[in-house]
Amino acid sequence: MPRPQLDADEIRNSIMETAEELIRQRGAVDFSVSEIATACGMSQSNLYRYFESKEAFYEAMAGRWFEELNTLMEETIASELPAKEKMFAFFANRLAIKRARFEDDPKLFESYMEIGHQHFEVVRGYIDLADHYLAVIVAEAMAEGHFEDMEIDHTVSLINLMVQPFCNPDIMMNMWPTSTDDNLRIVLDTIFIGLKGKSPVKLDVAPDLRIAS
Amino acid sequence: MPRPQLDADEIRNSIMETAEELIRQRGAVDFSVSEIATACGMSQSNLYRYFESKEAFYEAMAGRWFEELNTLMEETIASELPAKEKMFAFFANRLAIKRARFEDDPKLFESYMEIGHQHFEVVRGYIDLADHYLAVIVAEAMAEGHFEDMEIDHTVSLINLMVQPFCNPDIMMNMWPTSTDDNLRIVLDTIFIGLKGKSPVKLDVAPDLRIAS
Repeated sequence: MPRPQLDADEIRNSIMETAEELIRQRGAVDFSVSEIATACGMSQSNLYRYFESKEAFYEAMAGRWFEELNTLMEETIASELPAKEKMFAFFANRLAIKRARFEDDPKLFESYMEIGHQHFEVVRGYIDLADHYLAVIVAEAMAEGHFEDMEIDHTVSLINLMVQPFCNPDIMMNMWPTSTDDNLRIVLDTIFIGLKGKSPVKLDVAPDLRIAS
Repeated sequence: MPRPQLDADEIRNSIMETAEELIRQRGAVDFSVSEIATACGMSQSNLYRYFESKEAFYEAMAGRWFEELNTLMEETIASELPAKEKMFAFFANRLAIKRARFEDDPKLFESYMEIGHQHFEVVRGYIDLADHYLAVIVAEAMAEGHFEDMEIDHTVSLINLMVQPFCNPDIMMNMWPTSTDDNLRIVLDTIFIGLKGKSPVKLDVAPDLRIAS
């Protein structure tokens, strides 16, 4: 019976659109299920037919926010790009979407970020997923000879430290002028050249040793 | 007449300590001058003898927050350290102070950050000053042969992009487990080795050319 399923999805989507309108009007208020039901012109018990709990509702809202970002991320991972280009696409594609969403409605964007903090248990899974995919790219980069003598997890953690303005929406909001694609490229070049496990300082100070060894 | 001056400073300090107690109790509320006066047990007009305006009060509060950080920064700049060690000290010393302040009272730290956002015009000067000092270190690093073919301002901006978790208290608060001194050292090693102006990608892919040229 595919038809009723489709209708339920349509109703769920329209409930989430109404909720977004509420967020747009009132900011990151922690809505009760009854408030959302009222805004949708339906009874609370009817709303529970589509979202079985408040948690399920926030999970669906997070899913709606991350859907496009995750699809892009999965396409990047599946692509045949060399590791560095893949990593660039991994960050740049999602940066472009977030930037567009911010420019479309900065206040709504900020409210979504605040709601994300309030319901961080829902968001965490998506962050872990992104870390997992980044680890896949790092492993591919290592197979290509990059990040010599480094461990995957530590490399992921260091890259995350160095690219925060390109992936963390909280900080992004204050850094749009410098978190550009061009600067992302330079940052990744820097990481791919400079991030190595063994005494990089000495190599840098005495390049002759490098040739002799 | 040094004595009265000293007394005025003491009173100013005690007013600011009382204000901090208010922040500790009530969070980042935007206090009125009369609220601060009441908390200090003095009249509003008396308080204006020590802070001529609300802006002057917030400037003094910011000065109190940044004093130790700026002194350390100036000592680092004046030191005879090589550029990379100087840059490490520049970030690590202030990171240690902020971490200690956070651990001492996480909620108060967060409230101070929020007040900083509310009065960003007061904080901006301190951020610009840190950027200025970072530019001084970058210029010294260039004189030592680092950051080949880069411009100072762009280099400062790129370094700022890559070290946010070590200097931006907003993001720091969520990244204490990874914003360690050890990771800061690796990040700076990466920056000093990898950040160059001319087609770094090619050099990385074909190191033989480097030796031959």
